[in-house]
Amino acid sequence: MNVIDDEYYMGLALDMAERALGQTGVNPVVGAVVVKDGVLVGLGTHLQRGTPHAEVHALNMAGSNAEGSTVYVSLEPCSHYGLTPPCAERLIQEKVKRVVVACEDPNPQVAGRGIAMLQNSGIEVKAGVLRERAIKLNRKFIKFISTGLPYVTIKTASTLDGKIASKTGDSKWISNEGSRELVHTLRHRHQAIMVGVSTIIADDPQLTTRLSVPGLSPIRLIVDSKLRIPTTAKVLNDNLAKTVILTTEQADQNKAAYLTEHGIQLIYCGDNAQVDLQLALKQLGQQGISSVLVEGGGHINGSLLQGKLVDEVVLFFAPKLIGGVNAPSSFVFDGYDLMQDAISLREMEVEQIGDNICIRGIPVWSGDK
Amino acid sequence: MNVIDDEYYMGLALDMAERALGQTGVNPVVGAVVVKDGVLVGLGTHLQRGTPHAEVHALNMAGSNAEGSTVYVSLEPCSHYGLTPPCAERLIQEKVKRVVVACEDPNPQVAGRGIAMLQNSGIEVKAGVLRERAIKLNRKFIKFISTGLPYVTIKTASTLDGKIASKTGDSKWISNEGSRELVHTLRHRHQAIMVGVSTIIADDPQLTTRLSVPGLSPIRLIVDSKLRIPTTAKVLNDNLAKTVILTTEQADQNKAAYLTEHGIQLIYCGDNAQVDLQLALKQLGQQGISSVLVEGGGHINGSLLQGKLVDEVVLFFAPKLIGGVNAPSSFVFDGYDLMQDAISLREMEVEQIGDNICIRGIPVWSGDK
Repeated sequence: MNVIDDEYYMGLALDMAERALGQTGVNPVVGAVVVKDGVLVGLGTHLQRGTPHAEVHALNMAGSNAEGSTVYVSLEPCSHYGLTPPCAERLIQEKVKRVVVACEDPNPQVAGRGIAMLQNSGIEVKAGVLRERAIKLNRKFIKFISTGLPYVTIKTASTLDGKIASKTGDSKWISNEGSRELVHTLRHRHQAIMVGVSTIIADDPQLTTRLSVPGLSPIRLIVDSKLRIPTTAKVLNDNLAKTVILTTEQADQNKAAYLTEHGIQLIYCGDNAQVDLQLALKQLGQQGISSVLVEGGGHINGSLLQGKLVDEVVLFFAPKLIGGVNAPSSFVFDGYDLMQDAISLREMEVEQIGDNICIRGIPVWSGDK
Repeated sequence: MNVIDDEYYMGLALDMAERALGQTGVNPVVGAVVVKDGVLVGLGTHLQRGTPHAEVHALNMAGSNAEGSTVYVSLEPCSHYGLTPPCAERLIQEKVKRVVVACEDPNPQVAGRGIAMLQNSGIEVKAGVLRERAIKLNRKFIKFISTGLPYVTIKTASTLDGKIASKTGDSKWISNEGSRELVHTLRHRHQAIMVGVSTIIADDPQLTTRLSVPGLSPIRLIVDSKLRIPTTAKVLNDNLAKTVILTTEQADQNKAAYLTEHGIQLIYCGDNAQVDLQLALKQLGQQGISSVLVEGGGHINGSLLQGKLVDEVVLFFAPKLIGGVNAPSSFVFDGYDLMQDAISLREMEVEQIGDNICIRGIPVWSGDK
């Protein structure tokens, strides 16, 4: 049984925020709870960019009960006019008594100003309640708002000997049903999904979100340096989600023109033989893509890792050993000379999903520790 | 709180048996508990080959209380004269009332005869209490007694990308302290440990059991097809445990003579360029080695797997990604064309040991399912 305290109400605000993960675009997910004289009087969560913030929904629900209440909000109320008016002002207008905040807004336009506005108006503010959980929940937003680059999650599904297919390329199936449901959950929670063109050629996947309930499908990013994508590929024709091709100046101009005519956006990422993934991420960020789920092969995964471009890895392991020295591996990169220089994972979480094992973590590069 | 029932006492018999794992050689581990009129009156466990069985110790402790008692024994009492007299006879002599057995003895010299002897003397017998746990506990004995081959456990310690060293060969350190303590526990519980000569050349390890309490060191088996082992190697000179070299007819005869003169046993395993591991295991079994812990490189591990010679794998993963296409992998073998033909693991157990993950399982080859 939970004790009723600030964490109790903040926990609900975070629960509400979490359910909206994936639907707020570049915006953070935020939940708000209004409590007056010991009873819950308002609830709200931010639903979509350009629509009211969590506090506004919660205060609307609270009505006249907002006056003298305590408002729990999982992210510092905003202090600036963005697409909506500042929430700090609204809280002051409503004469709330106390505001409890989980974490400060890393947005340089806010960054403590929201809390300061409240305090200057005589509202009692307590910050840092369930801060760690709140930061974790919005790590995609935090990365994007502070760097302009999308948050990059690499997902792999491999055997225990690190293979993502047999030596003949067969990969049906490595992961189990439960793991695949989690992958679709990850898709819903990212704005874009990235694969190499080899995957399109080999499997012709849809790359959509397919859950037992409706979900949002991410933008499909195909890394295709030489525009080898078959014009019959599902991702070019099914209209189930937007498709964007990341390519290079070396790509065939006729194919490029054909694709553009058929409504496929091309993003040119350098003039090398391979797509410059760092440049690609920069351009994706500029286009308002704040998160990318990479379901690439070993080379894309390896390049991103070696380039320190990865924010999170989600590794599914099936209880199998397939062998084959040349069978494709989940990570192919030049690597490090010394074990002490290996990339390590922090905040590692291990979960058993039936007979699969899911290992999540935040990569830390040696020297960056 | 545990309810007092047959499982309650059998659980203690198994706990006692488990503590003796590693010290009974080719013999099973067995525990026995004697209960009379609701109270514990005798305890025993088999300690070492050639010494009294568990039942004998427990009955000795019970003394005159044995008459009319219930005896819990984790393995069917023996019915034959081995190095000691048959326990079934002793139980009959003591006039026990009831015998509860966890699992039948797979030894063809017993195989139900022990239970039958007891029943024929009017003793009530209940078999199968905690059978699964009992079978698991004695899986090394069961393998050996039914096939004459040692039980083979492969242990690896790798990064999450399946590497057991960097591309330069550096492996210090992959696993953490807790994992290494488990490895030493595994060494204590196997009669022999197997490594390739490359490991000796690279690391000059002791291959002894080093726990926070004293343990038994296994016989050290070095797979060395061409007798490349340096004469200064610790395993040849430290006298901390017996060392046996598995080699081929192609080995240098002078080096062979030198090693033999210095008290090192050589076992010839075929006349191919590589040691025939199947033949090696057969010869080891003939010499009374019932369990082998393989801490080999990827080639030994891979050959054993492909040869279906592995009974269990214990895979430690560290939260690291090292990269390097040519960095050594934990399993190097030709492998299978189709994912559905991959070796799978049954009875998989996953354990987090600090930031390491230990995955254990019993390999199942496709077609053998």
